Amino acid sequence: MLPLPDRGFDFGDGLFETLLVVNRTPLFLELHLQRMQTGLAVLGFPDCLSKVRAQISLALESPGFPEEAALRVTVTRGSGPRGYLPPPQVQPRIVIASTAREARQYNKLLSPARLALAKIRWGCQPELAGIKHLNRLEQVLAASECRTANSDEVVMLDQDGDVISVSAANLFLVDGDRLLTPELSHCGVSGTRRRLILKELAPALGLQAREAKVTVAQLEAATEVFYSNALVGVRPVASFAASHWHQHKVCDAIHNLYWRRAS
Amino acid sequence: MLPLPDRGFDFGDGLFETLLVVNRTPLFLELHLQRMQTGLAVLGFPDCLSKVRAQISLALESPGFPEEAALRVTVTRGSGPRGYLPPPQVQPRIVIASTAREARQYNKLLSPARLALAKIRWGCQPELAGIKHLNRLEQVLAASECRTANSDEVVMLDQDGDVISVSAANLFLVDGDRLLTPELSHCGVSGTRRRLILKELAPALGLQAREAKVTVAQLEAATEVFYSNALVGVRPVASFAASHWHQHKVCDAIHNLYWRRAS
Repeated sequence: MLPLPDRGFDFGDGLFETLLVVNRTPLFLELHLQRMQTGLAVLGFPDCLSKVRAQISLALESPGFPEEAALRVTVTRGSGPRGYLPPPQVQPRIVIASTAREARQYNKLLSPARLALAKIRWGCQPELAGIKHLNRLEQVLAASECRTANSDEVVMLDQDGDVISVSAANLFLVDGDRLLTPELSHCGVSGTRRRLILKELAPALGLQAREAKVTVAQLEAATEVFYSNALVGVRPVASFAASHWHQHKVCDAIHNLYWRRAS
Repeated sequence: MLPLPDRGFDFGDGLFETLLVVNRTPLFLELHLQRMQTGLAVLGFPDCLSKVRAQISLALESPGFPEEAALRVTVTRGSGPRGYLPPPQVQPRIVIASTAREARQYNKLLSPARLALAKIRWGCQPELAGIKHLNRLEQVLAASECRTANSDEVVMLDQDGDVISVSAANLFLVDGDRLLTPELSHCGVSGTRRRLILKELAPALGLQAREAKVTVAQLEAATEVFYSNALVGVRPVASFAASHWHQHKVCDAIHNLYWRRAS
């Protein structure tokens, strides 16, 4: 139960992180906390990261915590008087929720995903781009399109028609010997695993990885496509529009390195 | 207390309306319900408007309901499994909250407001423009700027630098014998009072009123400026940047007609 009023509920005035927890250990916790810290600064919240850390520990130690779980940490601007204006003294509210998940064989690559194109696009909002705030209607509507399109995920474009991501993960494409991921200065969520791949995994594999403007034509012409998020790690892409991919060499190499780092 | 999980809390997956209630009577209830109906369709919620209406009646009849209040009605996509994808069967959740307000002399025009320019702009998102959904971080950040700017409200621009609104109300400007209000096809909230002024009040006063692209220069050069929302009705603007307005003839005429219609 959430005490009301809560500005997270009223306006989406807050942030969240979804952590994969295996054997009571949250994977890449520091990457999540780093993104949250950036978000706290953008929204002008007082620094409450040590409290977030303590609440996560407490949750993990609770009796009956599942073997494998998605742990969601939400931080809102707490209560306040009616209206958009935040109170002068903010007491952030931290809400932890966990969902048990079936254990997975992490040495096995997930089945390749079929992608469709989402009609809804990312809005253009440079000031909020990258952080994982609670205003996520665009992705909700995009995810709804998976059902009608009968696809595993949907590709979301920006207002200019360039490729940004899928509804719940960051996209990567292999273009010759380069690994590209869409640049997120004006929309999208800067994924923890996206950052890990760009900064550590790709370089460790000798791959040139960088952020770039990515057109739909580039995506369709890629030699390989995959996506990443906290819960799946990396997942290869089988198809998008008329394009089909049958080999997933780069994704497979990143997958192997990723789970070695994670464990 | 809000039962969790709730998709309104998790993603801002919902809508709200803020009604002014005077003597247990919500003002212009039908205008609010019409906007909510549009929003329910955009978000793909099942139609639950009759339930919303019933819940509002119930709240107004509750013992001790204040003489004068702001009544907030929030409708969320309810509970569901983890993740952005909405459940196939949605049970919307309706949450009502009321805040007592001091009674006001409605025959008196409010004191003219001083405006500053907000650094944060409206994001460009045509699919969600106009409706009053729960993703309101841009307005929260804009409202925060009132405090640092020491102003009553802040002018919010769109991504192209054109004028859209203030943080919690719609703007109107008098340009010769025309009444203009910014066009909201790509961002902003389509206010209930904005609609009333455009469709009824301005025509009744013999004013040519229309939606238009409004530049900052046009705003500064206007002969009169005011804003409108459910809680204030209309409020004249005293200043913005180097511009100062000392006469509020049109605002005064709309104000008088507005409160005659409201009572």
